[in-house]
Amino acid sequence: MRALCVVGTGLIGGSLMRAAAAAGREVWGVAWSTGTAAAAQADGFDVDTDLDAALRKAADADALVVVAVPLPAVEQILTRVDAVAPTVRLTDAVSVKVAVQDLVTTYAPRARYVGGHPMAGTSESGWAAGDGALFRDAAWVVIADDGVDLEVWRDVAELAWACGSRVVPAASDEHDLAVARISHLPHLLAAVLASVGAGDPDDDLALALSASSFADGTRVAGTRPELTLAMCEGNRPALLAAVDEALGRLGVMRGALASTGGLKATVEAGYLARQRWKSTREPLGLAVSLEGPNALAELRELGRRGDVVSGWK
Amino acid sequence: MRALCVVGTGLIGGSLMRAAAAAGREVWGVAWSTGTAAAAQADGFDVDTDLDAALRKAADADALVVVAVPLPAVEQILTRVDAVAPTVRLTDAVSVKVAVQDLVTTYAPRARYVGGHPMAGTSESGWAAGDGALFRDAAWVVIADDGVDLEVWRDVAELAWACGSRVVPAASDEHDLAVARISHLPHLLAAVLASVGAGDPDDDLALALSASSFADGTRVAGTRPELTLAMCEGNRPALLAAVDEALGRLGVMRGALASTGGLKATVEAGYLARQRWKSTREPLGLAVSLEGPNALAELRELGRRGDVVSGWK
Repeated sequence: MRALCVVGTGLIGGSLMRAAAAAGREVWGVAWSTGTAAAAQADGFDVDTDLDAALRKAADADALVVVAVPLPAVEQILTRVDAVAPTVRLTDAVSVKVAVQDLVTTYAPRARYVGGHPMAGTSESGWAAGDGALFRDAAWVVIADDGVDLEVWRDVAELAWACGSRVVPAASDEHDLAVARISHLPHLLAAVLASVGAGDPDDDLALALSASSFADGTRVAGTRPELTLAMCEGNRPALLAAVDEALGRLGVMRGALASTGGLKATVEAGYLARQRWKSTREPLGLAVSLEGPNALAELRELGRRGDVVSGWK
Repeated sequence: MRALCVVGTGLIGGSLMRAAAAAGREVWGVAWSTGTAAAAQADGFDVDTDLDAALRKAADADALVVVAVPLPAVEQILTRVDAVAPTVRLTDAVSVKVAVQDLVTTYAPRARYVGGHPMAGTSESGWAAGDGALFRDAAWVVIADDGVDLEVWRDVAELAWACGSRVVPAASDEHDLAVARISHLPHLLAAVLASVGAGDPDDDLALALSASSFADGTRVAGTRPELTLAMCEGNRPALLAAVDEALGRLGVMRGALASTGGLKATVEAGYLARQRWKSTREPLGLAVSLEGPNALAELRELGRRGDVVSGWK
């Protein structure tokens, strides 16, 4: 079982350390503040603020390094990777993948990098919010772009399984378009819905009448704004396409409502889409081979079908 | 305790009969099909398909009649009210209020009508889905337009309390604008989000990656389309205003994303609106008087402040 070095000990990194430790992995971490490091140590974890030392230890142990920080902090970490552990096994948990791949190519080009994205979270943040069960039954994207290191691909997939996740292979650009639709757009629509619902600051009638449709539709608007911004702004081109599609569909609906008053097309399409979503909740698990010239293309195709990787053959 | 005649025995009417019976009220109901009537009778309720007979009994007993059917079915019921129980005490549970008031003015002008709207529901429907606890802690709007019958206002408020609800007074037009924002718009945004998320029918990657932000944001897209359509299409002018405000806010956000890439204004406004929503979850309950020339205006003002009526003084 490969040892693990987790850089960043917030909700994701902290949860990952707990899950990996519970699965019997050797794991150490890097925190930004001595306060967080002390809190993690008090919980029995090997966490320090010395990034270089942690990366050197990873190089010596041939461990897998997981970068679990928001996108704006990735560059400085990659600079240190290149300086002290240039060919280390490297993955990340950042919510966009093309941008991180570009940063790796620029700042840590020798690292054996395979991008990752565990699709889990809460509106909480920080070490204390961490939960070893956070990744259970979550989709964990492992990037299958042509040219990635298949040995590290296996490391990342096995880490995801150790955390109880489902392994979904995807190309970086297709991942970014997908998460724009199903994660970033939901955050922006929730913000818009919350603002329209609140309306006039001197009139609380609408909020007083709100029930579960509004509560559910605005839940992620309660996420700390910095986190939502870091996530959405880092995926700008893909998000713009998703926003434009939403605007187009809303505009057509607006036209129908104003002219004939009919909302049938919008409502029925939404109902069918939600039914299709339901049918994806129990994906088919397949054993795959990482051998052969088409291995990565086949992995990407498996992900597009909505299936998951459940073992090796 | 005033007796109750419930017209329509679907989710809302069926839940209302159960709740009122549990609170010790005499209650009888009208179903559209003999099958539903038989199911309700098997559950121990006095339900029949003879609308005229039920309305005559209500007139004789000076009972409160509750119309609990979708908007398109209201007209035919009001026609029978005017024919066999023209001055009966009358309320309803329909999700729009200006349209129902207009129908009452046209088809049952002598009825002692006070509009109502219990803000509760599930994505289920029909007698079997009914639940006596459905209205517990829900807002129940009681219409306080100038000129309404204050004696029937008291009847409706007391029925709401008997069902465990909070009584929120509002003007018909302000109610319709409010529910467009916090109930109908959420259904349309959920439908649009579900369609954008599902995307290309041959590619399930996005749906496979979806987590709680997408699940929550699309939940009400799973409601039976006929129910969503009846609700939204009946509130067309108010809904158009809400859709236009959402389109305006999304358009501004789209412009910012395309030009500077910044989403701060959208995300922070949504966060503050969600915080404001949270602060409305435990409303202040006030005892009110139904006497005096300003009683209805004061009730409407109380509702705009987000307070609720909890008793009489």
